[in-house]
Amino acid sequence: MDGDLGKKYLQEYLSKTDLLFKKYLDRKIKEAERLGALPAEILKSFSEITRRGKKIRGSLVVLGYSAAGGNDERAILDASTFIELIHAGLLVHDDIQDRDVVRRGLPTIHKEFETKAKNSQVLADEAKHYGLSLGLNAGISAYFIAFDKLLNSDFSPERLYKAAQITSEYIIRVSYGQALDVANVIINNINQHELLNILRYKSAEYTGVLPLLVGAVLAGKEDEEYLKNLREYGLCLGWAFQIQDDILGAFGDEIKIGKTVGSDFKEGKVTLLMLHLAKHGNSAQKAVQKQVLGNKKITKADIAKIQQVIREAGSYDYVVNLGWSYVKKGEKLIPKITKDKKLQEVFRSMLYFMMERAV
Amino acid sequence: MDGDLGKKYLQEYLSKTDLLFKKYLDRKIKEAERLGALPAEILKSFSEITRRGKKIRGSLVVLGYSAAGGNDERAILDASTFIELIHAGLLVHDDIQDRDVVRRGLPTIHKEFETKAKNSQVLADEAKHYGLSLGLNAGISAYFIAFDKLLNSDFSPERLYKAAQITSEYIIRVSYGQALDVANVIINNINQHELLNILRYKSAEYTGVLPLLVGAVLAGKEDEEYLKNLREYGLCLGWAFQIQDDILGAFGDEIKIGKTVGSDFKEGKVTLLMLHLAKHGNSAQKAVQKQVLGNKKITKADIAKIQQVIREAGSYDYVVNLGWSYVKKGEKLIPKITKDKKLQEVFRSMLYFMMERAV
Repeated sequence: MDGDLGKKYLQEYLSKTDLLFKKYLDRKIKEAERLGALPAEILKSFSEITRRGKKIRGSLVVLGYSAAGGNDERAILDASTFIELIHAGLLVHDDIQDRDVVRRGLPTIHKEFETKAKNSQVLADEAKHYGLSLGLNAGISAYFIAFDKLLNSDFSPERLYKAAQITSEYIIRVSYGQALDVANVIINNINQHELLNILRYKSAEYTGVLPLLVGAVLAGKEDEEYLKNLREYGLCLGWAFQIQDDILGAFGDEIKIGKTVGSDFKEGKVTLLMLHLAKHGNSAQKAVQKQVLGNKKITKADIAKIQQVIREAGSYDYVVNLGWSYVKKGEKLIPKITKDKKLQEVFRSMLYFMMERAV
Repeated sequence: MDGDLGKKYLQEYLSKTDLLFKKYLDRKIKEAERLGALPAEILKSFSEITRRGKKIRGSLVVLGYSAAGGNDERAILDASTFIELIHAGLLVHDDIQDRDVVRRGLPTIHKEFETKAKNSQVLADEAKHYGLSLGLNAGISAYFIAFDKLLNSDFSPERLYKAAQITSEYIIRVSYGQALDVANVIINNINQHELLNILRYKSAEYTGVLPLLVGAVLAGKEDEEYLKNLREYGLCLGWAFQIQDDILGAFGDEIKIGKTVGSDFKEGKVTLLMLHLAKHGNSAQKAVQKQVLGNKKITKADIAKIQQVIREAGSYDYVVNLGWSYVKKGEKLIPKITKDKKLQEVFRSMLYFMMERAV
């Protein structure tokens, strides 16, 4: 498939960084241990979850670096992992907000420590609050460990400074998008333009644009026209990623994607699929939607029913096509990003891979 | 009093930075508004709380800068505010963990948005989760806005890079100390050495050491011996601050300190006062402690009772004396930090002020 090369690039990135990543996190766990057993225990769980990531963002840092002419592979592989730490921190906090209990096939941090407290005979409410509090701190640790990782990487202070500056700028917007997303559970309160804005800030930009930009500035690239094209390409890639993510959230295989399928339905989250269905479904289809969306006691049968309705109303096709339109748009920008034919192929395939991936 | 000059230094800092701070936060609120009304609304509440801070840490950045020979007052006043943003972010997250409802005389962020949701007829449990989620995002925003503020300040990339690096290092430990503090509600499970470690990492170091160090590196100071003395002085100051904070948490005036008095008792937090009481109180005194500590339905009469017991058992005097011992220790280090007689006086008075302050 067209995404095969992108997938391979990602797999190579994973195999090249896994040990690096483990070593770094093990060192941080040891440092935490000096303060107490509990921080080390939390960091260990966090490390397991982080290492299981797809690491799309990390690989994009390297890709952006290579396209911008960078050639210190060792240094960029090492530095690139910082973005996976921020990402994992955001996921830990996201899981609290979405009340998810599974992440990458493991219990979410807040759930893990809630369960541990329950097993020590702590009352249910207090155990929940304990889990929440430790999950909250795990996320905070992750953000600052990420900066620690980036700022102690093997690049000049000027470049690291620039990379940290850009990172802050983008993650501020992630937190705003995330706040909007929390409130986004009333389907009649939002139109597609507003929803796209939320998705753009809470995910598409920081998934696609931020890592490529960081890679470019770590390679010393400052040409504003070049960075503009890179941002545009990155946004297309981020859109393809986020749109496929929404589709997988509704249709994916729980084992494969490693998180709870149907939690978007349960939380009553307004996704592109849901918005299209609310606008274009017939009255029977809308009745199913009304019954399932936000239903805290959702069953597997409910999920199957709404999946069928999403397909029948054409919402599935609509959203898939929207995703592919960004792939096509992104493709056109590649010649402006790199003249290297091999890298061009990676940039192209990465776009396709975003929409082809099943995890 | 000996702390008068320190208090005056702080007041001058407040009056010099308030408008600067407001302008910066107003600009950030406008930026947030472009993404949506909700992020701007959250940031507005955050801004109100942040501006009401005592800003001890911000003023210490300036003090550290001046002692290290820095002389660009405009630049350092502006840059120094970043640390108050991180601090306010930590408080927002802390208030979630401690279930506090008042901060600096205003509703805590999570409580404010919980109340708003309740007023819109959202069910109690969902309103609580909504408030929690928005509080969580407010804190995340704050951390990255803080880095944004620091990294866009008027210093060289090299110095800003160094300041960001040190900040990450210290805040990682804050999150570990905070995690330990969450678990620290069983009085027989901890000894004074362990408790002092928690307080050191979750508060004393980042209150006293981090700001002074940041100020020194922004002034270009790299001399390791100098920085070591600065760290030692800062730790003494941080200890005095944290010890007085514990005392105020148990004895302070709710209106003056702007947060809920007695919430430490209610949460069952093991403080230095509680630890001393558990060890040295007689059986009647310990019975009172057992009845009050962790009591979710604590009354004003309960608080008065435990306050009396803390005094009678000598725990109050013990902790106050411990605080003053750090003041005395810190005083001796001042000649190694600055030769400027006027600044020496500020360094000295700041230590005293930490223990003399009623807010």
